[in-house]
Amino acid sequence: MVPYSPITKEIIHHIKETVGSDSVIQDPHKVREYGQDAGEYIHSPDLVVDATRADQVQALLRLANHYHFPVTPRGLGTGVAGGSVPLRGGVVLSLTGMNRIISIERNNLIATVEPGVINLDLKNAVQSEGLFYPPDPASLDTCSIGGNAATNAGGPSCVKYGTTRDYVLGIDVVLPSGEKIDVGVQTRKGVVGYDLLHLLIGSEGTLGIITKLILKLIPLPEATTTLVAFFPQLTEAMDAVTSVLIHGYVPSAIEFLDRRCLELIGDLLPFNGAGKTGAFLLVETDGISTVIDREIEAIGNICMTNGALNVMLAPDSQKRNRMWQIRREVALRIEHNSPVYVPEDVVVPISRIAEFVSYLPEFERRHGIKIYSFGHAGDGNIHLNITAEDETQKQRLEEGIEKILVRVLSMGGTISGEHGIGIAKKQYLPLELSPESIRLQKEIKRIFDPHHILNPGKIFDMDV
Amino acid sequence: MVPYSPITKEIIHHIKETVGSDSVIQDPHKVREYGQDAGEYIHSPDLVVDATRADQVQALLRLANHYHFPVTPRGLGTGVAGGSVPLRGGVVLSLTGMNRIISIERNNLIATVEPGVINLDLKNAVQSEGLFYPPDPASLDTCSIGGNAATNAGGPSCVKYGTTRDYVLGIDVVLPSGEKIDVGVQTRKGVVGYDLLHLLIGSEGTLGIITKLILKLIPLPEATTTLVAFFPQLTEAMDAVTSVLIHGYVPSAIEFLDRRCLELIGDLLPFNGAGKTGAFLLVETDGISTVIDREIEAIGNICMTNGALNVMLAPDSQKRNRMWQIRREVALRIEHNSPVYVPEDVVVPISRIAEFVSYLPEFERRHGIKIYSFGHAGDGNIHLNITAEDETQKQRLEEGIEKILVRVLSMGGTISGEHGIGIAKKQYLPLELSPESIRLQKEIKRIFDPHHILNPGKIFDMDV
Repeated sequence: MVPYSPITKEIIHHIKETVGSDSVIQDPHKVREYGQDAGEYIHSPDLVVDATRADQVQALLRLANHYHFPVTPRGLGTGVAGGSVPLRGGVVLSLTGMNRIISIERNNLIATVEPGVINLDLKNAVQSEGLFYPPDPASLDTCSIGGNAATNAGGPSCVKYGTTRDYVLGIDVVLPSGEKIDVGVQTRKGVVGYDLLHLLIGSEGTLGIITKLILKLIPLPEATTTLVAFFPQLTEAMDAVTSVLIHGYVPSAIEFLDRRCLELIGDLLPFNGAGKTGAFLLVETDGISTVIDREIEAIGNICMTNGALNVMLAPDSQKRNRMWQIRREVALRIEHNSPVYVPEDVVVPISRIAEFVSYLPEFERRHGIKIYSFGHAGDGNIHLNITAEDETQKQRLEEGIEKILVRVLSMGGTISGEHGIGIAKKQYLPLELSPESIRLQKEIKRIFDPHHILNPGKIFDMDV
Repeated sequence: MVPYSPITKEIIHHIKETVGSDSVIQDPHKVREYGQDAGEYIHSPDLVVDATRADQVQALLRLANHYHFPVTPRGLGTGVAGGSVPLRGGVVLSLTGMNRIISIERNNLIATVEPGVINLDLKNAVQSEGLFYPPDPASLDTCSIGGNAATNAGGPSCVKYGTTRDYVLGIDVVLPSGEKIDVGVQTRKGVVGYDLLHLLIGSEGTLGIITKLILKLIPLPEATTTLVAFFPQLTEAMDAVTSVLIHGYVPSAIEFLDRRCLELIGDLLPFNGAGKTGAFLLVETDGISTVIDREIEAIGNICMTNGALNVMLAPDSQKRNRMWQIRREVALRIEHNSPVYVPEDVVVPISRIAEFVSYLPEFERRHGIKIYSFGHAGDGNIHLNITAEDETQKQRLEEGIEKILVRVLSMGGTISGEHGIGIAKKQYLPLELSPESIRLQKEIKRIFDPHHILNPGKIFDMDV
């Protein structure tokens, strides 16, 4: 493997000359802040380029090929798999300065944005035009649209609206060579050549750097209503979820919290006795008021039939907001309370959600770990937050994780529904993908990035 | 370029030995039938293998690499771009014998099928379980699910439900090497490695051969209702379409016919005087009865506001079926009536549909062509059926087409919304895609198919 060049004075000089000194961050304290995402991996870059224009991105990548130094693109650093951590040092290319909403075309139901736009800012901007941008990762108030596309981010609304992939019509992308191309379309359809757009989405910043996105918008639903239900056991809650879905309801969110999460944050929820139950279910439906009122009632009945202790329909908006806020903070609190913490986000088929969660206590016992589970029950996407008392148990914890992932796969599931592979799941990739599938992916990486300067060490290691 | 081997007796012997004589078609009359799809291109294969199992597909491709002969996969031959025409001869691999619906899992909202299953057969089978498989190409009663995936087929319902891509969760695919891999997932989500699934979908049988599909199903809508409207001019109809969409309605189909189509088939429509108007609009909504009744009324009002001569709400189901039947046959009748016929299916942004169709008479005059336009107005996907009086005008016709495509692109459109590139639009590919984008696609083709034995001459020519 050809070693990367250190970021020499000459290189820094050349970078400053081409992208402009104002866009270069050298202060070691500041630079270090770009060495971590919301996960556990840390590696400081040598330099940060804070781009505000696509031509700076192009220039930087040309220099990276010339001098052979690594460049790691970064949105707002809210990932948990280490995708934006500069594992091999070099330059972090921050895209947060490219944060303009270029246009919202109400007549075409599209928005054109730069990658650094915050998800919630876009949501709010289009909402004021009567439009809706559905993707809603938990970090929606702090994550970037570019990062969402790079990881194909999901969120609670996926169960009805799909993931980020379903809303990106086209992108401008700077290839590792520095060349900029546009892929995809700005129309509702298009089948011209290979689907490079979807190849790039979810490629975790390893194949190119998104500098502009054309996003599909949909009409804003008239209203939203919510139900919360408490169950004695998680399996019963999950049976209720499967039952809701196969009865033909398509809620805009079906979220759950298990007993451990409830023990941790249940008292914060605006409902009495939440902390003492076995599982919490939150179901949201959106659409036409009269319809969703009827729907949410029917869903409530399904919950009762499946053993719910208590069902509350349509809590007021203050309670609702509070509930979502707490739901989004669960992961942070688990992390805060656990010396060792690994976030997994497996997916199992809808019909097997209850069966899967019924195995968790066994894994806890056998591997001496503690699992907090919550997430998007309607997708079968279960966030397993696996914790241990101290670092000495790390190996047992890793064995436990591997066993869980193997079980997930044997049930027809997948090892990541939202977080991606990044650094965190690299070692587990061969559990899910065949050697030939990984070989093809490495060959594709080689085509896009022959000198292997873009975001090295992510998804898989290249044998360069 | 290394020439392909002719299909020698030795090769035929070897093919028979590995896939079984029963699966080999040699009768020249029968073989010729596999040399054409529903479009204009014809090239007979030398031999047909009618596979019933994936291992036959694998064995054939291994032989193709060994002897260096081309293999062209074929579903039910309903494409119009020549994607399944064996341009370089060799073997056509028919997949119509792999036509089992392996399972419909109501509890997981998925179906597992072989590629030769007819679209409508799947629709009917899942409907009896209260489920819905939305993709509905015009040829739905004669086209295969495998072909739909290979071309990312669309149809009228796209405006609400998306294209085939949105319903394929995972596939088994035999790579050109003969190796079989599974890509994608069988769950609602998954972000593990590069998105090879979407790279393969729409790749027109040039990267691999799909031998199994896991499809996403959704709950069957409770009811469907329809509206038909006649307008004096096509531009007014298209203004109505844009207006419907930006008012927040999401019909399950918005189809149109222009004056020329109405002249040709208007008298067959079960409405008085249809043949004498300037444009016909068909809007369908599905969902909960009470809701769609209100919706269709509101859409009718939008049509009247935009100058409709006549709006008919909710025609009875016999009229409705008749209307769809005629709508699906329009292309066949145009072809039947025209000595020279080229089907184009451009897409323009929703807000510019009316503007685009207003240019058509000018193109007709300038290039001496006659354009029948119909299609999926709600996507901006307009099927332009370009005809000429005789073969001598072919060159002017091609000039006309190129000018139209250039105009489409200058309006932010795309040159194909559904048909794909195949042979038919190969020459126009560089109008839409940059040289670098095409280069990347060729490199991807090379990775998947280093000996270039799979479906040569489609999408682009390889410089091998």
